[in-house]
Amino acid sequence: MSTRPPDRFAHALDEAVALHPAGPGRWAGRTAPAYWNIVGPFGGWSVALLLQAVLNEPGRHGDPLGMTANLMARVEEGPLDVLTRCVRTNRSTEFWDAEMRQGDAAYAQAMVTLGQRPEATDAFLEARAPDAPAPETLAPQDRSGIGLRWLERYEFRPVAGASSQEGGSTRTVHWMREVDGRALDFTGLAACCDAIVPRIWLHAGGVRPVSTISLNIYFHATAAGLEAAGDDYLLVEAIGRRGHRGMFDHAATIWSRAGELLATTEQIAWYK
Amino acid sequence: MSTRPPDRFAHALDEAVALHPAGPGRWAGRTAPAYWNIVGPFGGWSVALLLQAVLNEPGRHGDPLGMTANLMARVEEGPLDVLTRCVRTNRSTEFWDAEMRQGDAAYAQAMVTLGQRPEATDAFLEARAPDAPAPETLAPQDRSGIGLRWLERYEFRPVAGASSQEGGSTRTVHWMREVDGRALDFTGLAACCDAIVPRIWLHAGGVRPVSTISLNIYFHATAAGLEAAGDDYLLVEAIGRRGHRGMFDHAATIWSRAGELLATTEQIAWYK
Repeated sequence: MSTRPPDRFAHALDEAVALHPAGPGRWAGRTAPAYWNIVGPFGGWSVALLLQAVLNEPGRHGDPLGMTANLMARVEEGPLDVLTRCVRTNRSTEFWDAEMRQGDAAYAQAMVTLGQRPEATDAFLEARAPDAPAPETLAPQDRSGIGLRWLERYEFRPVAGASSQEGGSTRTVHWMREVDGRALDFTGLAACCDAIVPRIWLHAGGVRPVSTISLNIYFHATAAGLEAAGDDYLLVEAIGRRGHRGMFDHAATIWSRAGELLATTEQIAWYK
Repeated sequence: MSTRPPDRFAHALDEAVALHPAGPGRWAGRTAPAYWNIVGPFGGWSVALLLQAVLNEPGRHGDPLGMTANLMARVEEGPLDVLTRCVRTNRSTEFWDAEMRQGDAAYAQAMVTLGQRPEATDAFLEARAPDAPAPETLAPQDRSGIGLRWLERYEFRPVAGASSQEGGSTRTVHWMREVDGRALDFTGLAACCDAIVPRIWLHAGGVRPVSTISLNIYFHATAAGLEAAGDDYLLVEAIGRRGHRGMFDHAATIWSRAGELLATTEQIAWYK
């Protein structure tokens, strides 16, 4: 593992989450034009960056089991620091904090749980992947004219659920992958967890101001499971459960094409 | 709001999460015999205590929108401190950290998101409460002989799902309430989120070593919604999604009897 980013990157996400060591528990980075949203960075970039800072730590033990990221304020274009802290190390689990700062103010924070899983236990899989035709048989989503840079980093192929269903279900299913063939890892998967259409748009028939406030991920796949998924499409099923008085949620499951449950993710977001 | 607990408590949970101010961002408490589990406290007590510390803060703004608690190590019987930190205050949201310490070591940590919701927005409710007969028509779960103190603090009335279903679904539905008539609040609701039978017991046919590692809650109800639920039964539907290599999850929705979605909660837990 290198803690100093290379000068050139094969994939856009690696460049976007590049962090330079800047002292113990401090990583220096900057916002990424390629992952810009309307008035700030794509939330999934912030989530991925917080996770990457922890994964960069040379003394960390284990791979991600879960994380929660709070996106507290709109990040400004420019330099930033991520402060990391190991809160506790156990035999098979480790707990980290990460905080993204610009100047003296905190803009995003996360808790990351790492674990070293035992090799052999019994297992169950009760969640079921949604029915979906092969992505090659579906049309890519037309994103021309939307003008959001981060959307250009992903290819989406909608399977079910429309973008305007007033009063109907907000359930959606889509295939997605990074456009530049980056192989899946925990950082890439974390970013995908915020690349889900805001349910309130689906409920109320269109684009309106929204902002992710808090996003939780539980990683069910091991590093080997992510490696097996490679750069192939991921299948994402998302539902909304409730929205009222300015806050709505979604809950989503993320699957490999081979049918492995890679992660579950929930979030609350603000709307008006 | 009082920041000094009274000398006598009407309800066991209030006594169990009593914290005395011990300096800025520091609250002193102790473990609660009434909420003891097998070899340490009930995880829901730890979650509730971390939340209570933030709610005690006289300068906090808003009510809980969400929290994630990491239960990092087995808490020992005796005194403890909870350290609180306000990470960021915005116009309508505020973000807090809380960390439970015994001596110099951290045993549990949480991030808590507070918010002041706008009065009037459009709304949707897509999650559906599970079918359940009135709790009065169902038999209370027989907990005699189990010997776990915290279980005595709750009354459970199972609706669906058995405690031994090898190979079958782990879905369960139950009514629950605190036995001493404590009115629901955010702290009480947080504790309920860990009072859910471990899915791996349901999968693999019985009690085995398990431990909650990380638990996420999104609070959909406002304080008024919780007040309306009062001390009546809550309806809890829980599913398992995946368990393998020593970690399993659950996802649950918690409803008032009147059919309001009060909270959603997910967790990952260790098993062997």
